Amino acid sequence: MEINSFNISSYPSSEKIYKAGTLFPIKVGMRKINLTPTVSYDANNKKVFTPNAPVVVYDTSGPYTDPAIKTDINAGLPRLREQWVLDRGDVEQLDGITSEYGRMRLNDKSLDSVRFKNVKKPYVAKEGRRITQMAYAKAGKITAEMEYVALRENMNNAELGIDSRITPEFVRQEVAAGRAIIPANINHPEAEPMIIGRNFLVKLNTNIGNSALGSSIEEEVKKAVWSCYWGGDTLMDLSTGKNIHETREWIIRNCPVPMGTVPIYQALEKVNGKVRDLTWEIYRDTLIEQCEQGVDYFTIHAGVKREHAMLLGNRLTGCVSRGGSIMTEWCVMHNQESFLYEHFDEICDILARYDVAISLGDGMRPGSIHDANDRAQFLELDVLGELTERAWAHDVQVIIEGPGHVPMDKIKENMDRELNKCHEAPFYTLGPLTMDIAPGYDHITSAIGAAQIAWLGTAMICYVTPKEHLALPNLEDVREGVITYKIAAHAADLAKHHPGAQVRDDAMGKARYQFRWKDQFNLSLDPARAREYYIASHDVDDKYCTMCGPNFCAMRISQSVAREMCKDE
Amino acid sequence: MEINSFNISSYPSSEKIYKAGTLFPIKVGMRKINLTPTVSYDANNKKVFTPNAPVVVYDTSGPYTDPAIKTDINAGLPRLREQWVLDRGDVEQLDGITSEYGRMRLNDKSLDSVRFKNVKKPYVAKEGRRITQMAYAKAGKITAEMEYVALRENMNNAELGIDSRITPEFVRQEVAAGRAIIPANINHPEAEPMIIGRNFLVKLNTNIGNSALGSSIEEEVKKAVWSCYWGGDTLMDLSTGKNIHETREWIIRNCPVPMGTVPIYQALEKVNGKVRDLTWEIYRDTLIEQCEQGVDYFTIHAGVKREHAMLLGNRLTGCVSRGGSIMTEWCVMHNQESFLYEHFDEICDILARYDVAISLGDGMRPGSIHDANDRAQFLELDVLGELTERAWAHDVQVIIEGPGHVPMDKIKENMDRELNKCHEAPFYTLGPLTMDIAPGYDHITSAIGAAQIAWLGTAMICYVTPKEHLALPNLEDVREGVITYKIAAHAADLAKHHPGAQVRDDAMGKARYQFRWKDQFNLSLDPARAREYYIASHDVDDKYCTMCGPNFCAMRISQSVAREMCKDE
Repeated sequence: MEINSFNISSYPSSEKIYKAGTLFPIKVGMRKINLTPTVSYDANNKKVFTPNAPVVVYDTSGPYTDPAIKTDINAGLPRLREQWVLDRGDVEQLDGITSEYGRMRLNDKSLDSVRFKNVKKPYVAKEGRRITQMAYAKAGKITAEMEYVALRENMNNAELGIDSRITPEFVRQEVAAGRAIIPANINHPEAEPMIIGRNFLVKLNTNIGNSALGSSIEEEVKKAVWSCYWGGDTLMDLSTGKNIHETREWIIRNCPVPMGTVPIYQALEKVNGKVRDLTWEIYRDTLIEQCEQGVDYFTIHAGVKREHAMLLGNRLTGCVSRGGSIMTEWCVMHNQESFLYEHFDEICDILARYDVAISLGDGMRPGSIHDANDRAQFLELDVLGELTERAWAHDVQVIIEGPGHVPMDKIKENMDRELNKCHEAPFYTLGPLTMDIAPGYDHITSAIGAAQIAWLGTAMICYVTPKEHLALPNLEDVREGVITYKIAAHAADLAKHHPGAQVRDDAMGKARYQFRWKDQFNLSLDPARAREYYIASHDVDDKYCTMCGPNFCAMRISQSVAREMCKDE
Repeated sequence: MEINSFNISSYPSSEKIYKAGTLFPIKVGMRKINLTPTVSYDANNKKVFTPNAPVVVYDTSGPYTDPAIKTDINAGLPRLREQWVLDRGDVEQLDGITSEYGRMRLNDKSLDSVRFKNVKKPYVAKEGRRITQMAYAKAGKITAEMEYVALRENMNNAELGIDSRITPEFVRQEVAAGRAIIPANINHPEAEPMIIGRNFLVKLNTNIGNSALGSSIEEEVKKAVWSCYWGGDTLMDLSTGKNIHETREWIIRNCPVPMGTVPIYQALEKVNGKVRDLTWEIYRDTLIEQCEQGVDYFTIHAGVKREHAMLLGNRLTGCVSRGGSIMTEWCVMHNQESFLYEHFDEICDILARYDVAISLGDGMRPGSIHDANDRAQFLELDVLGELTERAWAHDVQVIIEGPGHVPMDKIKENMDRELNKCHEAPFYTLGPLTMDIAPGYDHITSAIGAAQIAWLGTAMICYVTPKEHLALPNLEDVREGVITYKIAAHAADLAKHHPGAQVRDDAMGKARYQFRWKDQFNLSLDPARAREYYIASHDVDDKYCTMCGPNFCAMRISQSVAREMCKDE
């Protein structure tokens, strides 16, 4: 498969490096961007080369960009975390799959052609053992995952003498308090640990998934790896088409980042799309099926209650969340409270055995500027706060999903209420989109909102592609969406003064001032794009920019002024 | 020339309409978007059609989109404002061009092939008469231009019963106070009046201009019209190549929006790029040349003083403003104060005679996150405040240019200082770019900052295209840049609760909920793009979105829940 051809060489002048742990035998992959020297002239007009320190950047691409690792999509990625989990001595391997549906799929010979061949038997917590990252954190124990994320967040801060608050112990405290999560299903040992919390780098989630309308398993796996390659921190598989179970297995086994799903989608598939026929038992079996495959976090719309249906009438665009609308319809049809809400403790009990995190879904998120911050939305948020505490009682890690379409002046209220009502659990928002009138550009309408809400404290932002509201994203749309959200996240990291966040910008500024064009490309979030735009009209050795041309370059003039001033002194 | 083919038909389902003035015999062009009816079913399952009110939107495209007007690029646009100006009885027509350089170009037969053929003799204020919009406003007189912009800002608010504070008298007060400007050179009567001020719709400026490296006159005129077509409110011609004078004439005569320039660029061309050879006399002649051609506003870097050069040493990226670096170099070379600063009152005196506005240039704007909000930048802003008052004493309208590269957390300080130090003169910012590391995507890094600063009070934002820092924008880049900045401006208008700003969003939300796809395209900022993305995978009669597919559509389910709930009642 073509995705094995993704490699470090596409990031010119970069190398894969690893930082070793001190508490655990771990090594954390990062990308080092090597820079060219600054060239100046000495008194005798001889060239002098002054080296520029390399810049180390956060790397979500996993083993795909390590030339020393030969990836094979049919074998899956190396099981990085398996030994860490086993070393803790509190899990056991099952003889087979627990889920009825999972067993049925496994025994269906007609699926052999689409099946991932190398499926392992799942792990589960030993009876009575609390195995989640939150449970360890509360117990005062630092895990390998915690040291991993601490190293990862710091990049080269230590070498640069940048003081960072992010230590393994700090990570533990944040996870214990529920202010951060490390999504890390014991059955997804291929994923490199990462942390979601407002005192860490802002993360971005990407969505992939085939709908009934198109796209193959191969395409979805390719999109997953592609999204990690460009910088996606987590990945949600929102598939609603056929072979969801098998597609998911392929993706998880080859995915170097945590993966999330919305289990209600598959549960609905199992009852042929008939909302009325959904039952707790089918949903429960779906949860177990996915826990054992290795899904790291579930979106669960347990905050959508029967009473919410009454509030939809005041809205311009009703309910725009698939999960939310399914649950509303179910409540209305059965004239009953949501089974997700009613069985929430049982859900937590299941998830805790695999360390699957909950992303509490915002079924009532506004789908238009008109509906922003309305009663339906905020009532649900109150319920999410109640559910957060219930999940934490089971040591289940929680994040809270947020809107939606929200004008800039109403963004802060969303963030403040979330922190307040949901006890500082990490906020995970879609956008928000700051207007309704720019389909085709909603990556931009939403990046404006995402940057702002992330600055205010949102821990993870869910990307939006240019095709939002219009069509399913293709590979180029995924790239555009990921880079746009890397931008929103970085804008927030800078505004929050995240330790070391500005190192790359400063290296870029210096490279610009010195006309080191290749370094400018290589330091870019998308080196290929920068180079492509530039190269069409330049030579990379040019000592000026196109906007001004050779005679009017402000920076060149500015340099000569600086030299002139030095002479005067 | 191909640009005559731009027409209203590219905006499907739209018509050009005109609103008539009541104080003056004026008519203000707008675009009316007609919508399809909502389809529902009555008790007998018969289709019922309920009409949806059309949406009227602000229109910057001028006569090009009026099928009743046949534009001819060789003749120039109709001289809309000429009679208004003459009716005031305070200007006179000159016998010829005042500028020496202008006369020299006119008499140069070798330029005949590139010359615009239909040049009119320029107007100038009669001796002792104050003819600027600010002068009228201070004198308590409402001009036709003031009524024009009041009508233009309101679109269809009156019809919709939206209470708007924007009346001709309000416009007059804002212009009198210096909180808003109406750039309207008496020698550019082709331009449709527009207003720049923080109590009005946020405006966007686009930059065009050939550099020494490429692009022809024809291309530049095409870009100008193209930028207006997509929504540019004003246009700066930043040409530094040859035939600047002739190119400018072509653009102004065919430009339906106010046009600005940076006269120091042309002055420098006249001394063959030798900064040392720049003189006040050459600059002065350039001002007069351009005033008489019809430039509506000049960027003048009179706030860059000799003392600023000393501060550049603390910066990572020195001076990144062309005008700023030229003036710094001049001061250092001559060991003298800037001639722009020294002759500022004389400059104002010249500009007042044609009603040319001043855009006080930010020569010290930061070119990197590192340099944001530093001493050099803010010292210059103090000087701009002093110059603002000096310009106002001459009744010259003023806007203040702003940064630059600024992280989100430092944006507010820029806005607050500007309002405070520059006496509430309108702020006009480039971006700001919220980071340095995303060349190829700087329309996005800057839209994040532009939306935020516009919400805080910036009156006009200068677009940035994807090619920023890398190459000159082509037509597609201009389109992408303009739409991105329409987004930033609209996000701010919504956040500021500008009267009527949400009408178009609400129409879009309703069209979405009712699956009126064609209306969704037509209500978009870029209908062609929305349609193109959608059409590749759909039939426009589909009753679902691609993301969810036909069985999982949240809005469809939500509609059926709404119907269900109604039954219950």
